[in-house]
Amino acid sequence: MSAPTSFLHNVLNPHSVAIIGASENTQKFGGRVMNFILQHGFKGRILPVNPAAGSILGIPAYASIEDAPGPIDVALIAVPGMQLEAAVEACGKARITACVVLAADFAEAGLDGANRQANLVRIALQHGVRLIGPNCLGFINPALRLALTSSVALAVAPMPIGNIGLVSQSGSLMAALISHAQDLGTGFSIAASVGNQADLEICDFIEYFLTDPATHAICVYVEGLKDGPRFLQLAARCRAAGKPLLVVKAGFSEAGARITRSHTASLAGSDAAWTAACHEHAVVLLDDPEALIQCADFLIRFGAPAGDGVAAMSPSGGTVAITADRLAASGLRLADLSENTQRELHQIVPATRPVNPLDVGGLARDVGLTSARDCYRLLADDPDTGVVLIVVATTPQLDAKVRLWAELAVARGKPTVILLTPGALVDSARGILRELHCPFTNRMDDALRVVKAAINYGAALRLLPTTASIPDNFGEVAAYCAPASALTESETKQLLSLAGITVTRDLQVHAAANAVAAARALGYPVVLKLSSRTLTHKSEVGGVALDLRTDDAVAMAWQRIATRLTAVEPASVLECVIQPMITGGIELIVGSRWDQQFGALVLVGAGGIWAETLRDTQCALAPLSSQRALELVRKLRIFPVLAGARGQAGADLDALIDTIVRVSWLAATLGARLAELDINPLLVKPPGQGVVALDARATLYPRS
Amino acid sequence: MSAPTSFLHNVLNPHSVAIIGASENTQKFGGRVMNFILQHGFKGRILPVNPAAGSILGIPAYASIEDAPGPIDVALIAVPGMQLEAAVEACGKARITACVVLAADFAEAGLDGANRQANLVRIALQHGVRLIGPNCLGFINPALRLALTSSVALAVAPMPIGNIGLVSQSGSLMAALISHAQDLGTGFSIAASVGNQADLEICDFIEYFLTDPATHAICVYVEGLKDGPRFLQLAARCRAAGKPLLVVKAGFSEAGARITRSHTASLAGSDAAWTAACHEHAVVLLDDPEALIQCADFLIRFGAPAGDGVAAMSPSGGTVAITADRLAASGLRLADLSENTQRELHQIVPATRPVNPLDVGGLARDVGLTSARDCYRLLADDPDTGVVLIVVATTPQLDAKVRLWAELAVARGKPTVILLTPGALVDSARGILRELHCPFTNRMDDALRVVKAAINYGAALRLLPTTASIPDNFGEVAAYCAPASALTESETKQLLSLAGITVTRDLQVHAAANAVAAARALGYPVVLKLSSRTLTHKSEVGGVALDLRTDDAVAMAWQRIATRLTAVEPASVLECVIQPMITGGIELIVGSRWDQQFGALVLVGAGGIWAETLRDTQCALAPLSSQRALELVRKLRIFPVLAGARGQAGADLDALIDTIVRVSWLAATLGARLAELDINPLLVKPPGQGVVALDARATLYPRS
Repeated sequence: MSAPTSFLHNVLNPHSVAIIGASENTQKFGGRVMNFILQHGFKGRILPVNPAAGSILGIPAYASIEDAPGPIDVALIAVPGMQLEAAVEACGKARITACVVLAADFAEAGLDGANRQANLVRIALQHGVRLIGPNCLGFINPALRLALTSSVALAVAPMPIGNIGLVSQSGSLMAALISHAQDLGTGFSIAASVGNQADLEICDFIEYFLTDPATHAICVYVEGLKDGPRFLQLAARCRAAGKPLLVVKAGFSEAGARITRSHTASLAGSDAAWTAACHEHAVVLLDDPEALIQCADFLIRFGAPAGDGVAAMSPSGGTVAITADRLAASGLRLADLSENTQRELHQIVPATRPVNPLDVGGLARDVGLTSARDCYRLLADDPDTGVVLIVVATTPQLDAKVRLWAELAVARGKPTVILLTPGALVDSARGILRELHCPFTNRMDDALRVVKAAINYGAALRLLPTTASIPDNFGEVAAYCAPASALTESETKQLLSLAGITVTRDLQVHAAANAVAAARALGYPVVLKLSSRTLTHKSEVGGVALDLRTDDAVAMAWQRIATRLTAVEPASVLECVIQPMITGGIELIVGSRWDQQFGALVLVGAGGIWAETLRDTQCALAPLSSQRALELVRKLRIFPVLAGARGQAGADLDALIDTIVRVSWLAATLGARLAELDINPLLVKPPGQGVVALDARATLYPRS
Repeated sequence: MSAPTSFLHNVLNPHSVAIIGASENTQKFGGRVMNFILQHGFKGRILPVNPAAGSILGIPAYASIEDAPGPIDVALIAVPGMQLEAAVEACGKARITACVVLAADFAEAGLDGANRQANLVRIALQHGVRLIGPNCLGFINPALRLALTSSVALAVAPMPIGNIGLVSQSGSLMAALISHAQDLGTGFSIAASVGNQADLEICDFIEYFLTDPATHAICVYVEGLKDGPRFLQLAARCRAAGKPLLVVKAGFSEAGARITRSHTASLAGSDAAWTAACHEHAVVLLDDPEALIQCADFLIRFGAPAGDGVAAMSPSGGTVAITADRLAASGLRLADLSENTQRELHQIVPATRPVNPLDVGGLARDVGLTSARDCYRLLADDPDTGVVLIVVATTPQLDAKVRLWAELAVARGKPTVILLTPGALVDSARGILRELHCPFTNRMDDALRVVKAAINYGAALRLLPTTASIPDNFGEVAAYCAPASALTESETKQLLSLAGITVTRDLQVHAAANAVAAARALGYPVVLKLSSRTLTHKSEVGGVALDLRTDDAVAMAWQRIATRLTAVEPASVLECVIQPMITGGIELIVGSRWDQQFGALVLVGAGGIWAETLRDTQCALAPLSSQRALELVRKLRIFPVLAGARGQAGADLDALIDTIVRVSWLAATLGARLAELDINPLLVKPPGQGVVALDARATLYPRS
């Protein structure tokens, strides 16, 4: 399905464009498109197609596409659904390489629509035509003054030219971003909407942007990927090429996922998988579309910050206090300014003022600009400053100060986020920043998003690639053969043992008497657990008895579990396992999931009774190096407990890391067969004492 | 210190205003003030005072305030610091009731400044003058066209008239909010800045706003309160009067608190105390100043929502998907629309589309407005809809639809948040909303803040007042007499016992042999703990030995603790306590703190090794009713574990609630004497089995 780059280059940078269903009536798609294409002044050939022929808005029109003189690089089809197939076929005969299809009511509208879409793609392929859409709003190429879209965003001229390549599954969202780019003084190499991605898809555009010299950063709004592995390969190429790739992904919530299905027939995929994949490949994952433009513009202008220290300043004391609070609440780190920087700053501002964030208000007017300049320089040049945040509030000589700060930032290339807190009152400062092509934001939320995204991007770029190598004593897990896909606890533990993971010594028992004998063999205290292929959440059905210390206790527990089983599954015959009762350690969950888009994922988190409640979990693509596994563990909120906070023993991190790596290889080796695996709890004992899988379950499909 | 309301009414609604230090030079404070007061057209008497007399900007000026004809309601003093005291004295002699003091360099600038400030207040009181400031920017009264401020925000005319009363410790922040009010089409009854609050303070203004019929909502930017209890009384009156009180409080972070000290000499106070106090009194606590205006405007227009269900719609499918995700991430609940509403909506939009959030895009143009109206009505009228969120994206007939939605919302009074996602492209829609006085936002972050603030405000109003009554068997805790303020574990437990809280049976021991005897008396297993007035964090110094099961183990543990004590405090003689080792339950922390501004606070959270790591804590003002205590516990992230999630036993909630109430009465009874108390861990056993305080410490000052 991958389109060669040169091919898409011709489509997005056409010499000639046909509008099929062209019209003069701006109430119609074909009318809006004709209007915009003329209004913005496209210099290539424009070929309106309309059965009535004649001319449209002064341009000679053709009754059919076959009548129009070739070669034609791209056609936009603005005819109703029932005429679409014929139009695509005609484009093929006219040797047009690609068509933009605006019409909706395809795969997003249910099964019939999906069939219509499949049929349209089949016809297009038969006739050698590639499709953008359907259910899209076309694209713009501002440098060529080409507005090949029906979006009302193009009612405002001129189109914003710049170095952002945008591809969006939503046309309306593309329109909002075009409007914001105009307001912020930035713009696009190409902004394209791809709707249902029936043929050409987001990855084709990312691939084009990778090779396009005018594109310096790539922004994506995606509801679902057609090809996850291809996306990851392209992300790695973007990273290598130094082109930031920024993504807003919709559908992480349950309600959101329902909507992506009904909007562009996209399957949303999991939040955890996306977060893990993006982190691994330095993709900037954002929650807000406008932030795409703000962050891309910032990274194009300043590149990635060298460190995570933030130095902030404002001429308003109240704003400085709020900035300090908001930075702290966002988890950002204030730069720890050197003594030298502090001393020099205190020659400009009163010694009673803290230096970071810095209140630069109320200084003598006659040295106002000098002070503003010197304060910026001192903050920006401190070795611990990765990003400068300037929070502009009303102050004497505001415009002059903003100009000075922006010029310094741009000249020095120091990552500097400028936030303008007043409204239209300071629009003249906004004009100055647009003119200087210096990025700015208007809300603290946005400023913090940009600071955070830039710092995280820098950190991700500095993450050295690691090589995950298969652990010692990693057995033939691929050969493990389970009698059914829902593995019992014992079967799962056999699989874990093959992978070199320590499990409890479990004895399978079929009667109360066996259980007592087994308990004596293991030595008290013991645990008695229901063994079932169907009831995998054993605690929920009362199938677990902990800390049994006598024969009687074992026999009574057997009876209790038997009664519970009869209540839940009257036909089942009770089987149990007996295990030694092991305490003294911290309970984690370590597991894996197969993700449809990105493949094997490994996860680690707080386990036992805390697993569901705290949702303190980290994920990564499998397999993992030890170094990446440690990074995951360090990101857990409960890490201080593992590390031994406040005089506690802490946990055997080496053994934990080894287990995570082994689980990751299990997941990577078994691939799609291993739908999910949970070791919960994995008891992590104090340093030097290892780990042990107390309970585990898995879903493993047979080899096909 | 409280000013009578009528007094502040005359100051804020003056008939005559003196500008001391008036000038024509707009580089000077006195020049900017003169300019603004004339530019905005104040109709009262304006009395410029300047030693050169003559006239200023065409207005007759006076050499001194004593020369100016009275009565004068308010004077703005714009002279340098060294002339201030004389100016205030002169105002007193001229029988001026209040002065606005712009000059800075007072208490915010260290000890000398604090002395200058105290002196200024003394002189003012001596001469019967009240002060606003110093270190402020004055105030505006838009209805009187009075701009008594040097803030450059007033360069833009007209001043925004409206029903928001604003009082801010930061003048520059007031300026930003004036600008935003202009942009959003809302405005102020009064906007005042109070700087250091040397005399008149935030509470004086809240009290004025309470009685001012033109003020329908009160917004506060505060760095520190002068009188916490007065603030709480006023908050209760605001609630009773139906005037929402909205607060941004700076200085919650460590860096933020340093800045509030240096900015307005304010002590920030604790986040927990503010959150608890605001929740109890239905005060809307926000993290962002602009949100003050947005939320106040919304509450003035629509009042508090009746429920917490959110119904959202947008004409952009991508935007609908993102809205669903953002609502979920914000913890907001989608309204569960009735079957009837769903059926009627599906007669307008295709049946494949989810109904909430609702995609209203791509519908037939000829019924576009009818569909837009009907969809809004159906969502707004559903019984589960508390708030409607309309996310506007580019769509045909956008202005007409926005007008229609706003008119419907305003006419029906249904709380409706309108978010305009494109930029200047849709400024005409913004104009329509301003004209209709219908609140709107421009960023999803802001829309969600407004939705959340409004819903939480409604919920807080519905919180029925409860009466906290002293628990049974609550002893004479006030009479408890400790030998020093840092209580040992045993002393703290004695105090807890007096309050009726179950503690472990502890035996005090002074030698290894005693320890063994005590352990035998209690029965194994036992715990041996260092007993120290100075080393209260016992685990951190290795002063705790758990689960000792033999005489030998006790003797060895004694020796280990003795060795550790010698290492840390060579001069100390070892004392320990022996306790029974109790397991089986969930470890919480329950405690209290004395807050300088708001008094006694009670707290509950995850305890033991999780306390520091999870920071899962809830606070409330003491004393508490059982009902409020249960509300606190329900808000803990770990509540599902306490309630018995996934087949776990759960915890004795009744006993936990009883303990929280008892601790709250301990705190309320002992008042400022009890600086802090921590029961950590409080072991909460399974239902019916009670709780027991395993460890505890307190700081209790002697009765004065």
